[in-house]
Amino acid sequence: MTQNLQIHLASRPSGEPGAANFRLVEATVPELGEGQVLVRHHFLSLDPYMRGRMNDAKSYAQPQPLDQVMGGGTVGEVVASNHPGFAAGDKVVGMGGWQQYSVVDARQPGVLRKVDTTQVPLSAYLGAVGMPGVTAWYGLVKIIGPKAGQTVVVSAASGAVGSAVGQLAKARGARAVGIAGGADKCAYVVDELGFDACIDYKSHRDLKSLSQALKEACPNGIDGHFENVGGVILDAVMLRSNAFCRVAMCGMISGYNGEPIPMAAPQLILVNRMTVEGFIVSEHMEVWPQALAELGQGVATGKLKYRETIAQGLESAPEAFIGLLKGRNFGKQLVKLI
Amino acid sequence: MTQNLQIHLASRPSGEPGAANFRLVEATVPELGEGQVLVRHHFLSLDPYMRGRMNDAKSYAQPQPLDQVMGGGTVGEVVASNHPGFAAGDKVVGMGGWQQYSVVDARQPGVLRKVDTTQVPLSAYLGAVGMPGVTAWYGLVKIIGPKAGQTVVVSAASGAVGSAVGQLAKARGARAVGIAGGADKCAYVVDELGFDACIDYKSHRDLKSLSQALKEACPNGIDGHFENVGGVILDAVMLRSNAFCRVAMCGMISGYNGEPIPMAAPQLILVNRMTVEGFIVSEHMEVWPQALAELGQGVATGKLKYRETIAQGLESAPEAFIGLLKGRNFGKQLVKLI
Repeated sequence: MTQNLQIHLASRPSGEPGAANFRLVEATVPELGEGQVLVRHHFLSLDPYMRGRMNDAKSYAQPQPLDQVMGGGTVGEVVASNHPGFAAGDKVVGMGGWQQYSVVDARQPGVLRKVDTTQVPLSAYLGAVGMPGVTAWYGLVKIIGPKAGQTVVVSAASGAVGSAVGQLAKARGARAVGIAGGADKCAYVVDELGFDACIDYKSHRDLKSLSQALKEACPNGIDGHFENVGGVILDAVMLRSNAFCRVAMCGMISGYNGEPIPMAAPQLILVNRMTVEGFIVSEHMEVWPQALAELGQGVATGKLKYRETIAQGLESAPEAFIGLLKGRNFGKQLVKLI
Repeated sequence: MTQNLQIHLASRPSGEPGAANFRLVEATVPELGEGQVLVRHHFLSLDPYMRGRMNDAKSYAQPQPLDQVMGGGTVGEVVASNHPGFAAGDKVVGMGGWQQYSVVDARQPGVLRKVDTTQVPLSAYLGAVGMPGVTAWYGLVKIIGPKAGQTVVVSAASGAVGSAVGQLAKARGARAVGIAGGADKCAYVVDELGFDACIDYKSHRDLKSLSQALKEACPNGIDGHFENVGGVILDAVMLRSNAFCRVAMCGMISGYNGEPIPMAAPQLILVNRMTVEGFIVSEHMEVWPQALAELGQGVATGKLKYRETIAQGLESAPEAFIGLLKGRNFGKQLVKLI
């Protein structure tokens, strides 16, 4: 029987998660039933949203159950199949979770999707051509909808989502301004990704300083903002918003461990006639084909750039995830499983 | 020469405005120039937005200039006219300001509008069939867009805007829940205006208590919210929001005197996939004809109810305005000038 290492949620964190919240479990791969497909995972995706699921709180998703495999996106290769739509050797993307193998009932529509790796690397289907890319696309195109010449700001700009937001904004003729943590990330955002400017929030910790930096980076004000972080970053952006500024609220990682992150001046929503809209990309499946077409084309032609931080081996996943929440990754955080 | 009493802004308030911020000025009515119309004001409208204009701060409108007539909506009667579109005796609505008479250049489109008082009382054109009514209509219809069976909450529910919001929501088959200050106002909102429930915020001062009251009044959660107040009221509503809740941000009177009114948990915008949209009705002139048609029909047929608090004489305007900001009015606050 094939061994299948798994990582389970052992306990719920209060505040920052630690290694003790996770448990490495040695399981085995079961026999395949009717319609089932066995997938060997090549890469596991680590994403900030997973922190929210570790809580036992009301949210848009069911909490991650205790003592079960941590959920998460995976790409890999079909090893065996009892479903006519899949054959050994097929490259697939799915939600296999934090484990080496998954058994998928391929009769359920959408749970497993074959991907073409001739022009797009397999790992990119977890990033720029996957959920993070579509997240960027939806927030930018459907909520912000920038016009040429407008200014779009994005926080966590070097990350899997933020890096795509700015590049998609540039492709639409907008000015793209990133916010990221550290000089290296900011240099990458401007020099490699082609943003017009990037602000290092580690050099601008308070509202006044960050607001001043935004004023310099956005001389014509801010027309659209893609929020991944929240807290003082959102407050500073609101101070520089133009009339009718649209904010796509995608994540608020600054509060994921339970820190209070009040919005200092919500009256600016009124004064600036802003629209602030929260969204979850999995609720907008209708846009995925269009978004993936643009994103895949971008990666295939080299126009849409991305960066990956790759941890090696399933055992490294908890530490890599903890680092992700602290911004230690650079670009898309993956775990390589083979 | 006809005397024209005026009230000027004498100084800018810090915090709550006081009588000393205003000055009563005895002026006279000038000769009419070409295309001009002389209007004798019957009623002056007092509205919360005026507080914002008393500050010398960046906002959507120019600040009220010092030592000039306070701006404001008026209804009255044409006394003399040098414009073929207006004749003595015409009833008109305009922005005549805090004074007994105004001279209007009627060649500018939209500055003066003739109204029909056979079925709608003149004063209603400053309330239910005027700017407050259209404000209610725009936020409810264009931002909240309630479906039958959904629940809509509105703060300042007995006021000129809030009372219309709830009645328009009921007319669309929604459950309407008001928030108002005091048992009398709440009884009026339910018994006279026909809301399904009304919460007295004076009995629920803190977030926990108000949130619990909302839970009881909104057993199926909140699908739309019309915000006139802000602060703890908005925080409590957000705790009870359903997925895809739409918030029309119309006013935040709780912060008009400079009090900090942080939004406690903006992450709920994400968790509940809310849309929070600030708006100013004067930027949406395209909806006025449709909105005024429904509102006028409602008042003419007695289906759309409203209440007025009427102060007598121009001299009473400052005190009435100060009271408005404290919620001392009951329904639309007017000043009767004749």
